[in-house]
Amino acid sequence: MTAPQASWIDSANDGNTHFSLQNLPYGVFSTQGQTPRVGVAIGDQIVDLAALDQAGLLPEAARGTFAAASLNRFIALGQPVWSETRRRLTALLSGADAALRDNAALRDRALVPMSAATLHLPVEIPGYTDFYSSKEHATNVGRMFRDPDNALLPNWLEIPIGYNGRASSVVVSGTPLHRPNGQIKLPNEARPVFSACRKLDFELEMGFIVGKPSALGEPVSTADAPAHMFGMVLLNDWSARDIQQWEYVPLGPFNSKGFGTSISPWVVTMEALEPFRRDNPAQSPEPLPYLQQQGQNAYDIALEVALQPEGAAAPSTICRTNFKAMYWTMAQQLAHHTVSGCNVRVGDLMGSGTISGTTPDSYGSLLELTRNGAEPLTLADGSQRSFLQDGDAVIMTGYCQGDGYRVGFGTVSGKILPAR
Amino acid sequence: MTAPQASWIDSANDGNTHFSLQNLPYGVFSTQGQTPRVGVAIGDQIVDLAALDQAGLLPEAARGTFAAASLNRFIALGQPVWSETRRRLTALLSGADAALRDNAALRDRALVPMSAATLHLPVEIPGYTDFYSSKEHATNVGRMFRDPDNALLPNWLEIPIGYNGRASSVVVSGTPLHRPNGQIKLPNEARPVFSACRKLDFELEMGFIVGKPSALGEPVSTADAPAHMFGMVLLNDWSARDIQQWEYVPLGPFNSKGFGTSISPWVVTMEALEPFRRDNPAQSPEPLPYLQQQGQNAYDIALEVALQPEGAAAPSTICRTNFKAMYWTMAQQLAHHTVSGCNVRVGDLMGSGTISGTTPDSYGSLLELTRNGAEPLTLADGSQRSFLQDGDAVIMTGYCQGDGYRVGFGTVSGKILPAR
Repeated sequence: MTAPQASWIDSANDGNTHFSLQNLPYGVFSTQGQTPRVGVAIGDQIVDLAALDQAGLLPEAARGTFAAASLNRFIALGQPVWSETRRRLTALLSGADAALRDNAALRDRALVPMSAATLHLPVEIPGYTDFYSSKEHATNVGRMFRDPDNALLPNWLEIPIGYNGRASSVVVSGTPLHRPNGQIKLPNEARPVFSACRKLDFELEMGFIVGKPSALGEPVSTADAPAHMFGMVLLNDWSARDIQQWEYVPLGPFNSKGFGTSISPWVVTMEALEPFRRDNPAQSPEPLPYLQQQGQNAYDIALEVALQPEGAAAPSTICRTNFKAMYWTMAQQLAHHTVSGCNVRVGDLMGSGTISGTTPDSYGSLLELTRNGAEPLTLADGSQRSFLQDGDAVIMTGYCQGDGYRVGFGTVSGKILPAR
Repeated sequence: MTAPQASWIDSANDGNTHFSLQNLPYGVFSTQGQTPRVGVAIGDQIVDLAALDQAGLLPEAARGTFAAASLNRFIALGQPVWSETRRRLTALLSGADAALRDNAALRDRALVPMSAATLHLPVEIPGYTDFYSSKEHATNVGRMFRDPDNALLPNWLEIPIGYNGRASSVVVSGTPLHRPNGQIKLPNEARPVFSACRKLDFELEMGFIVGKPSALGEPVSTADAPAHMFGMVLLNDWSARDIQQWEYVPLGPFNSKGFGTSISPWVVTMEALEPFRRDNPAQSPEPLPYLQQQGQNAYDIALEVALQPEGAAAPSTICRTNFKAMYWTMAQQLAHHTVSGCNVRVGDLMGSGTISGTTPDSYGSLLELTRNGAEPLTLADGSQRSFLQDGDAVIMTGYCQGDGYRVGFGTVSGKILPAR
């Protein structure tokens, strides 16, 4: 095994860090008294791109886009600028270009310990779509919510099923959420009750951020789809199962999802994920022609979910799975989304749907892990969980394992506060 | 009958114009070679608010917000500024303040014939939600898509059912749309086909524009809801029925709706609609407490839909109904949307759902008017329609009838181009 290319920032070279020189994910951060701006994570540091830009070290084409509260202006510049910026950052952080490494005053301005920074929602999200692309998840849910004998609906193997989510309530990791109130239909009551959710759940997802827009009326093919993706995030699609079951017919989930969706603060670029592309999943029946794809559109990303009750010494891992298990690929999702002529915009967030594997410890939601509460999980502190309790924190993490390095997403976490 | 207050712009005083002195709806327009800016419709003219602002005739608090390509900055200023601006415009356009009427140079700059202007999407829409609040429509659709004997689903009388729509493809009246392609499941085929939509439809709706945001986790009560509304528009929720029927289970409509939604260019303010508030509809069972409402949240707005085939001499009116027929009110919709803690933002568009009355000529979609194509309509030119054909234009209009004046929405129109 050859040692991976290293950075002069030591913490980036520990093989376990998510933020190796090979990663360079983008986010938005602030430090006390300063306005939010764009940064890149490296080891335990954040590189302030507005500072590097001011020092003239970043591409001319990106000038002025980093002193901003979102990545959107930078993303809108397009793929050649993303690549050139990555090349410049790689040179600066490896030391191939010594302009940052050897300038103490600039290092002081441009390097911020991650522990001293507040991370913000990285992208202004004009549209949020959530897919439903894990066959195991769709089967598990169908079994519990509908007909156990025909768990997978007839359209599922033909369509990368998706729905429009609520963009306004997408929040950055660390934002606590109140348990939602809503209508719940209890089995033996004639009418619904208004109640705090009693079956609060997470959904382990990933999402991609659209980097290149498409015009109204102009579909994006599966072949062109990867060029429309800027990067990926971890996503927790918080779900109120009891509200969902009562409201979702016939127009889909609404209040059961709209109270909050959490994403990781760091957007890992498709360029950084390139070495982790894998063969497309087998699909049967063969999809309709507009959904057929060449190349490698699956990604090998190891994922975990942990749950930490209020006051517990440590989180308990309750799910381990991998993103490559998804049936429909992101390229197919985008081709389907736009085949009607629907346009996409820079910053749009496309959620994968819950990522469940084939084994019971790889299911991406409590609904599946506990079989709708029938088989509670036992956590490290001895407590049991059917669904989330107040004070519970859910922590999701994910990374790609390279040869001596990782390209990781950090975490997306969130804590449940009591209902109001 | 007392004559209504008049304007020195004669065309505003014709009792039939939608754009009386009592209306003063906001839009965004441009003339050749000029950038889009905010205007108000009056008779057959548009008042350029950027020009009035520059002349110092509008409230100081709104200074600089009208030289903009959307209403959002103005709307975000809040209700006191909306009211003060309306008072100023009423004074200027009635002549109570002669500053515009008696200044020929300013009139030349600030008055633009509507016929010479291009109208743009008036609002930047961060989120689009579509409700389903007509009992007659929900019953008609349930009968055709699901079970004729249990047409209204059990949750419908408890919940103002809604779903998240696609904001990116909301377009202004006059924008043509291509017939969408997508997956269709034919009754005698084992698998779906990829095809141009064969059951293309419109849906007559209205929508309100959110004027005051709400915070994540903080519900808006029915009593507070009206204060969060800036104004209303006409809305055509174009629908591909065959795509919809195959895709909508279990997560709701997606590609069948996302290819385009048209709204009228003029936003009629809630203040202008105030005289047309009516008693709330009777509701049985009595809604859960969070949906109960006082006051008058229904609005008397006469609505019509016309269809004009390519080359036809005139449009044929195919539907006449009234917005006051809706079961769930806008106040209830907003209270429900936010009761989970979901936040709303300035510019959010909330569609009413298809507005259908009780009689067959008052149904707000071809699906209902033709009983899913079984009983085609005959148009004025002798042609028949089950669903929309290429070249068809759909023209929706709506107004409130005052005492000698109208407060109207103009039209929302759109023409169907062939599939690509």
